[in-house]
Amino acid sequence: MLNTETSIPSSAGRLDGLRVVMIGAGNVATHLALALCGAGAVLSQVYSRTAESASRLAKTIGCDFVTGLDEVLTDADVYVISVKDDAIRQVAERLCPTRTDGLFVHTSGCVPLSVFDGLARHSGVLYPMQTFSKAKSLDFRAVPCFVEAGDGEAMREVQMIAGVLSSKVVPLSSDKRKYLHLAAVFACNFANHCYAVAEGILREQGLSFDVMQPLVEETAEKVRVLSPVAAQTGPAVRNDTEVMATHLSLMSGHPQWQVLYEQMSKDIYMMTEKGARR
Amino acid sequence: MLNTETSIPSSAGRLDGLRVVMIGAGNVATHLALALCGAGAVLSQVYSRTAESASRLAKTIGCDFVTGLDEVLTDADVYVISVKDDAIRQVAERLCPTRTDGLFVHTSGCVPLSVFDGLARHSGVLYPMQTFSKAKSLDFRAVPCFVEAGDGEAMREVQMIAGVLSSKVVPLSSDKRKYLHLAAVFACNFANHCYAVAEGILREQGLSFDVMQPLVEETAEKVRVLSPVAAQTGPAVRNDTEVMATHLSLMSGHPQWQVLYEQMSKDIYMMTEKGARR
Repeated sequence: MLNTETSIPSSAGRLDGLRVVMIGAGNVATHLALALCGAGAVLSQVYSRTAESASRLAKTIGCDFVTGLDEVLTDADVYVISVKDDAIRQVAERLCPTRTDGLFVHTSGCVPLSVFDGLARHSGVLYPMQTFSKAKSLDFRAVPCFVEAGDGEAMREVQMIAGVLSSKVVPLSSDKRKYLHLAAVFACNFANHCYAVAEGILREQGLSFDVMQPLVEETAEKVRVLSPVAAQTGPAVRNDTEVMATHLSLMSGHPQWQVLYEQMSKDIYMMTEKGARR
Repeated sequence: MLNTETSIPSSAGRLDGLRVVMIGAGNVATHLALALCGAGAVLSQVYSRTAESASRLAKTIGCDFVTGLDEVLTDADVYVISVKDDAIRQVAERLCPTRTDGLFVHTSGCVPLSVFDGLARHSGVLYPMQTFSKAKSLDFRAVPCFVEAGDGEAMREVQMIAGVLSSKVVPLSSDKRKYLHLAAVFACNFANHCYAVAEGILREQGLSFDVMQPLVEETAEKVRVLSPVAAQTGPAVRNDTEVMATHLSLMSGHPQWQVLYEQMSKDIYMMTEKGARR
């Protein structure tokens, strides 16, 4: 486990000398590894089941990679487990017992800290709430990080690491974090799916999704100053049944989009009605 | 109708001297009226059925208001009709026959130009594709405006006016525009509803929607560089059934959000599968 007195100059400083092994090489692992390197941490090793993604990330950050859990270094300060949710427990079962000095941290919004119960001496969660794609760079400092740990020492370390990487670090229990993750699925993945349907509609008419960008960004920026319910516009909130009927007729070739349209419009109207009654 | 030679210095210039009557005082009318005033046009009058909204907008821009269509001025250059879609025809029926020199322009994404058929000598459409709320200011120059007109002279005027207000003016037929409007409902209203559900989930946990803002904005900015389908992340696109089951269980008190979640997740996965098969 990292000796904060010797390795880290200050909590507001950098992570120079912190030896980290990255377990996983997906979108979150990639962005987190880059942020850790940028903060001075030493990425000692990358593990991934598939050599292709392991080698790609290892090459990007300039370190070794392995594809077997038995080959993972035993003397790292921190093991960041950023694999599919249902694989976290089995990875921890393989790694923790023989690496008792290390701090084990997973990055999942949905998996509780208790996944490490009976396995790791020092464990924590660092959930960076953002939509990460390898093909899109971003400023990790602006990513809110939600942290949790199994003991006071681990908590100080997780908070210190998160505090160097991000300007917004919030302690949050596993129970609350799963609701946060659910909310993120709506605010990000489902909002993005709405963009995807819009793109599909436009493509069929020979129109580019590019024209949507100012609307998409204003919709996102608007909720800085107005609550989403107050910010709502369009036919559903006005209960403009004529426009909605026209829209449904335009999607006759896409029954699944019609279902989505009807469900969304009904919910929008219901939420507004409820809002008005408050 | 406006004499462009005497009233408007240049197409890239301002609208000084252009006498406009605003029919309607809603969100679009308010933002458009402010943009027109900012460009030097003379807002001669505001009409709205309700005195309250008419007077509010009239006060903001410093002009008279009326609540009866018979009282609308007869010598304006341009009549901007920005009322509910299903009221456009009847408003035009009342105004056009006795104001034959005016240019009539509606601002609807969904109503065709032909709504003016047999009524106006000069007619057009100026559809500013944006989400307008009175409580949120924005830069009209960045709002894409889609234009159409019934004759060449009207088209030149509508394009000139739109070109002064916005840096992005696109001629588009009524038929294409209704698909654009439908796409905008998905990309804006439905995306915003996803924010609203997220806010609802967080509120029940005592968490503020503010923490979502970086995620919401990155999701919107991401589709500048990646297509929405390529940008997708989260449990649905990974087909992470365990996480999805957990999420559904967290919404047991909100069956309508569960329906939305299931529908969205199914569609996201389908779209990705299709994408992968291309």
